Parts: sequence; structure tokens; C-alpha cells
Amino acid sequence: MYSILKNGGVCSPKGFSAAGISAGIKVSGNPDMALLKSEKAARCFAVFTTNKVKAAPVLYDKAVLEHAHFASAVVVNSGNANACTGEKGYEDAKNMAEMVENVLNLTPHSVLVCSTGVIGHLLPMDKIEAGIPRLVEGLHENASEEFGRAILTTDLALKSMAVEIQTEKGTITVGGACKGSGMIHPKMATMLAFITSDIALPIDFFATFREKISDSFNAITVDGDTSTNDTCIMLANGVSGIRYEDLNVSEQEEFCLALEIVMKELAKSIVRDGEGATKLIELRVEKAESHEEALKMARFIGTSNLAKCAMFGEDPNWGRILSSAGSSGCNMVAEHTDLYFGDVQVLSGGRPVECDTNALHAVVRQKEYQVRLVLNIGNASASAYTCDLSYDYVKINAEYTT
Amino acid sequence: MYSILKNGGVCSPKGFSAAGISAGIKVSGNPDMALLKSEKAARCFAVFTTNKVKAAPVLYDKAVLEHAHFASAVVVNSGNANACTGEKGYEDAKNMAEMVENVLNLTPHSVLVCSTGVIGHLLPMDKIEAGIPRLVEGLHENASEEFGRAILTTDLALKSMAVEIQTEKGTITVGGACKGSGMIHPKMATMLAFITSDIALPIDFFATFREKISDSFNAITVDGDTSTNDTCIMLANGVSGIRYEDLNVSEQEEFCLALEIVMKELAKSIVRDGEGATKLIELRVEKAESHEEALKMARFIGTSNLAKCAMFGEDPNWGRILSSAGSSGCNMVAEHTDLYFGDVQVLSGGRPVECDTNALHAVVRQKEYQVRLVLNIGNASASAYTCDLSYDYVKINAEYTT
Repeated sequence: MYSILKNGGVCSPKGFSAAGISAGIKVSGNPDMALLKSEKAARCFAVFTTNKVKAAPVLYDKAVLEHAHFASAVVVNSGNANACTGEKGYEDAKNMAEMVENVLNLTPHSVLVCSTGVIGHLLPMDKIEAGIPRLVEGLHENASEEFGRAILTTDLALKSMAVEIQTEKGTITVGGACKGSGMIHPKMATMLAFITSDIALPIDFFATFREKISDSFNAITVDGDTSTNDTCIMLANGVSGIRYEDLNVSEQEEFCLALEIVMKELAKSIVRDGEGATKLIELRVEKAESHEEALKMARFIGTSNLAKCAMFGEDPNWGRILSSAGSSGCNMVAEHTDLYFGDVQVLSGGRPVECDTNALHAVVRQKEYQVRLVLNIGNASASAYTCDLSYDYVKINAEYTT
Repeated sequence: MYSILKNGGVCSPKGFSAAGISAGIKVSGNPDMALLKSEKAARCFAVFTTNKVKAAPVLYDKAVLEHAHFASAVVVNSGNANACTGEKGYEDAKNMAEMVENVLNLTPHSVLVCSTGVIGHLLPMDKIEAGIPRLVEGLHENASEEFGRAILTTDLALKSMAVEIQTEKGTITVGGACKGSGMIHPKMATMLAFITSDIALPIDFFATFREKISDSFNAITVDGDTSTNDTCIMLANGVSGIRYEDLNVSEQEEFCLALEIVMKELAKSIVRDGEGATKLIELRVEKAESHEEALKMARFIGTSNLAKCAMFGEDPNWGRILSSAGSSGCNMVAEHTDLYFGDVQVLSGGRPVECDTNALHAVVRQKEYQVRLVLNIGNASASAYTCDLSYDYVKINAEYTT
């Protein structure tokens, strides 16, 4: 059995401490530097943006993780993405990590770096340098919220959670924090996510981690734009004294479920906080030929401006959903397809069915609901999560002038 | 030398007549049926939507053209897409074609059908049936505008043009009309395009036609949503007495250029009339590894909501352009990339350059301008055309309720 911890976050698992401070990078004076530290070197898995334009910290972390599969700390700054900053930017990312290694007296290549914010500006290294000793000094074990707030940019809400599971060998905790509302420069909403656990994980658990990424952070979309800084880092430090391999099969499954819950809920919290978003919609594709196809189709529908405007307008517009599905590049046969808004069926075998119009409109007036497309050509399913496209989205992204 | 004909259209080439009437399919009473006829069977090329959900007329035309490479007429209705209408819809499309064949006394499978409008409703066949004799009766050779207007749905502007070229063997004319502002149900802006010419074309010219499609109608985007009814049909009837094979090489090139101009200008007229659009932007990718990659990247940027909102906000936001290019899946090296808004360079080798801010803002305040991304990794180029994403786009697509 798992339980969700109240006010949980990256510090909920044993052996993690964190800090968040205002270092003066943001003109607003809001917190803009954060540090997450494990008391011992933690197994580290990380997945980065597939954007060909990669920010300096992404390039640095990838280089570090080519050789090491452990990390002791992650230092983060918000307010500046350190992207499109050339060789100097790379040196800055490297220096930022090395400064933390020095102050914490850690071995080389044991600290990772993340940045999020404006593209094309060099990091203010004087402020970073002054901030690091203050961060280290401020480290404590109840700092989940402090950490979670210092990584935010245009986000409106803190995105932090933790889940605890009981096993025969004792308690294991999975925590996490993330930030993002879907944009890049100038509104600085790169997606960053940090997952912590006090379990000890074998290196080949990376495959499972990647799977979970695909169904959580890679299953969401706000506006279809992939940032230059996207990063998800997991640290598993083994401080609980429990090794994954020592759990029985059902406990292993439970741990994976807890990990999935943390990652999915964090991912959904990004969509809920998407720019201009008024609704969170689960797009579920069922009975597809493969999980990959189901997810690809669900995400594709999730980027359809027409479908997203209809969601904003509270219009149960099945034509836009079906047409988008058809142009996703995935296999489907229109004549086999059923479609539901919530529990209300609107299409059967590709043709409109008579339905209770009041019930249908009640579904689309909700803040969160499910659209379910049943392809009837296979046995695989997947969900993607999207928000609606509102006036405010255009406003937020059009009114800014560089 | 080519010249653009004033008020030109599908009837400009010799041997074509057309008609447009109000048959009562649209509640507005606006023209909603059109007929295009060649005095002799014309070489016919057609390209259809890649959407897996294909409208009945698309399925019918594809079936006809599998066996025939000639057509004598195209009958079109607007106001109803005849999509997601099952077997009955297919029968209706077939009947519509056969009725025209009967009234015009043509051979079977010599008439194509196009529909555009609301998805999911059966065609009002009584109105169609009553309209066909009236269409045939109304056929005349100065009907370019009549035809062009009867195929429109939510379009604000007529989209029609023709180009004439002089060869040693005489005059050849290329005409065309299209409709579309980027939507499907409920605003009925499926893309339909009709190209006519009085040249005689060999069957293997289809490859050239497809190339031109890729650089014109397939190079535009309004909202990234591919309709169920997209169709581009070309009819070349040879009535000029000139065969393509008999032209010299430079005349052949000139004919291809004329065809390209007609197709590109018609395509751009769709973007200009895109829902809520206030600007037309050419996204040009240069020095890419291949034409396909250049076009794919240009189109990908053209669907970025972030980039499109910035265009609406008259913000020369290079970060959004570069980041979108990087996530297009095409090859690029950030450090080699240059970027221009109009003639103003903003990036050199992936890094911001000092530029004349006033000149830069003057560019993005224009109604139409070019954004040029120079990858410096190859020799291929391509352009895509997009419009901005405005409040009105959201308004048009959210306020309608089915």
C-alpha cells in the first residue's frame, strides 16, 4: 500500500537535504537558486531534451553522466537558461558544478547543473558564485518547498509531492519536484523535474525509469514546443537500507507504481499550470496496435489547436478529435472508431450516435475530464495530458516584447 | 515571359467552362455548388489528404483515378464535407458524380467530386440533385469568379488567379482557384484547390506536379490541423494545341514556373485568409542538408504556437524560432546557425549579434515578412508560409458550440 505524504517533496526520502535562496538573478527578487543534496552518492538516472539546440547545463550533465552513474547533488538556477551561450556558457555551467563540489568537498563530476529562464544571456557568474556558499549553508532536511519554489519561473503553483510505501523490509519513499508551464524564452518555463528516493537501485532500472518518463513527463503537452533545457533527474541514495533487488515481485511493482504516481502527478501539475490553461484534459487512446502508437496519437491530439480551442469553448467537438487522430500518422480505421467524452459516447464505428446532449455538455464544462478514443484495432492503451488553448495563452505569449 | 491575368481563374485556359449556384445547402443562402468542365477529357492529376479519416468524395476520387488518368469535370459542394458519413456517404458522392455524367452525357468515371463543410452530416441529396441540372445549364467560359465563390466556406476572400506564357508554339495559360482558412468542422475550411491548363501534359508530369504541391499547398500551415477533405486537382486539356513535350527546355521551365506561381500564390492566399490571421510570414530555411529537411523544419516552425504568438505580438523572438527549429527532428548545429528577420541579422553562429533594434522592429511590424534561418550545413533551401496566432483565432474556434 502506498500513501501520499502531506507537503511531501524531494526531501521526503531519507538522506536528502535541500535549500533555496534569492541570489539576485531574477529582477523580481524571487528565489532563483536551489540545491539538492544526498548524504551519500546516489544512483543517478537522467533524461534530457531531444532538442538539437541544447542548453549548456544539458550538455555538461550529459558529458558527466556518460562516465558516472552516481551523483551527490544538483545545483539549479532559475531566471536564466544558459542556452545559446556558446563555449563561455559551457564553462559557466562547469564552474557552477565545480564550485559546489569544492564547497561541499565532493569528488569531481558528482554534481549536476540545471538552468531555466531566458535564452541567449550569459549567467551572472558573480551572483552564482556568491550564492553557492549561502546555499550550502542553508541545506536542511525539511526544505522540499524551499527547493520547489526556487526552481520556478512563470509557474503559478508549487509542484512538489512524495509517496511512501511499506515493504517487509521497511519504508521506502519517493519524492519529487518539477517546474514548467510550457514556454521557453521569454517566459522561462522550461521543464525541470527532480525525483528522489531512498531506495538503492540497480543500474538497469534506467529502462523502467525511461518507461515512466514516457508515460508521465513525455505524455504532457502545453503548446507543443520542446525546450532547450528540459531535464528530468532521479537520485536514489539507498539510505533506507533497502535494495530494489531484495524486494519481492509485488513490492517491486508497488515501488514502480509509487514512482509512476509521483511522476504522473507532477507532470499533470505542469499541464494544470500551463500558460492560460483553464482545463486539464486526459486524452486516452485505447485498443490501439501498440502502446507507442496510442501515446503518439494521444499526444498528437493534445497539440491540435482546433481541439484545444474547442476545449476552451466547452464544445464537445468530436470532428476535431477524430480528424486530428487521423492525421497523427498512427494506424486507425475511421469505421472502427468509438469516441467518448467522459462516459458519454458520441461516435460508434466512426458515425455520430444519438446522445444525451445535457450530459455531454456537463462533461466538457468540468475543469478536468477524459476524452477516450477507442480504435478497436489492437490491445494497447495510453494517455496524454493537455490543457486548453485560451485567450490568455495568446495574451501571455504575444504581449511580451523582447 | 509570363504575365498574370487580371481576374484570372480556372476558366482562363482555353476549353474550360464553369458555373456556381446557390443550391440551398448552406443556411446562409450563399453559393454552395460549383461545376468545372473541360470541353474535352483532360489529363488529370490529383493529390489528396493524408489523413487516415478520409471524406467520402476523397475515397471516391481516389478509386476513380486508380484506373483513369483523365477527367472531364469536377463537381463541388460547400457547406457539407460528406465526411464520417459511412457507406451512405460514399454512395452519395458516387451518385453526385454519376448525375453530372448523365446530364452532360459523359462516359462513366469521368467526373470527380469534392465536398467541404461540416463533418458528420449526410449530404442533402434532394438539393444536390436539383442543383446539378441548374449547374450544367449555367456553364459558361467567364465563370472563374462564380466558380471560385461557390467553393468558399468561412473564407473571407476569393482565391483565384491565372498566368499566361508565350511560347514559340503559341500561348499557354495556367489557371486556378482554391478555398480554405485552415479549419474543419465546424467552420468548414477544408482546403480544396483546382488548377487548369490548356497545355497537353504527359502522364509522367505527375512527378513535377507533386513537387510543386510540396512547395505550395503542402508548404503552408494555418493551425497544423490536416483536414479530412484536402484535395488538389489539376486538369490539363490540351486545347491550346500545345504539347509539353514539344516545348523547348526553357519553355518547359517557364511553364513549370507559371504553374508554380499559380500554386504558390493560391497557397499563400489561404494563409493570408487564415482564421484570425493578421500577418503572412515566409519561413525560409537555407543551407540545409536536403530540400526535404529544409521544408520539414520550415513547416515545423510554422506550427509553433510560441513563434506564432510572438509574430502576432510583433516580437522578433529568435529564441522561439531557434528552439522550434531544434526540436523539428531535422539536422542542425546550433553553433553554425544564422538567423535573419527580413534583412536584419539577429544570430550568428548560434549567438545573438548586436543589431539595429529599430530596423528589427520595423520588420516585424510589417503585414508580410520573411524569417530566414541559415543552417550552414548543406546547400538546400525551402520556404514555408504561416500566419500568426491571434486572439481572433481562439475566438473563432472557441466560441462556436456544436
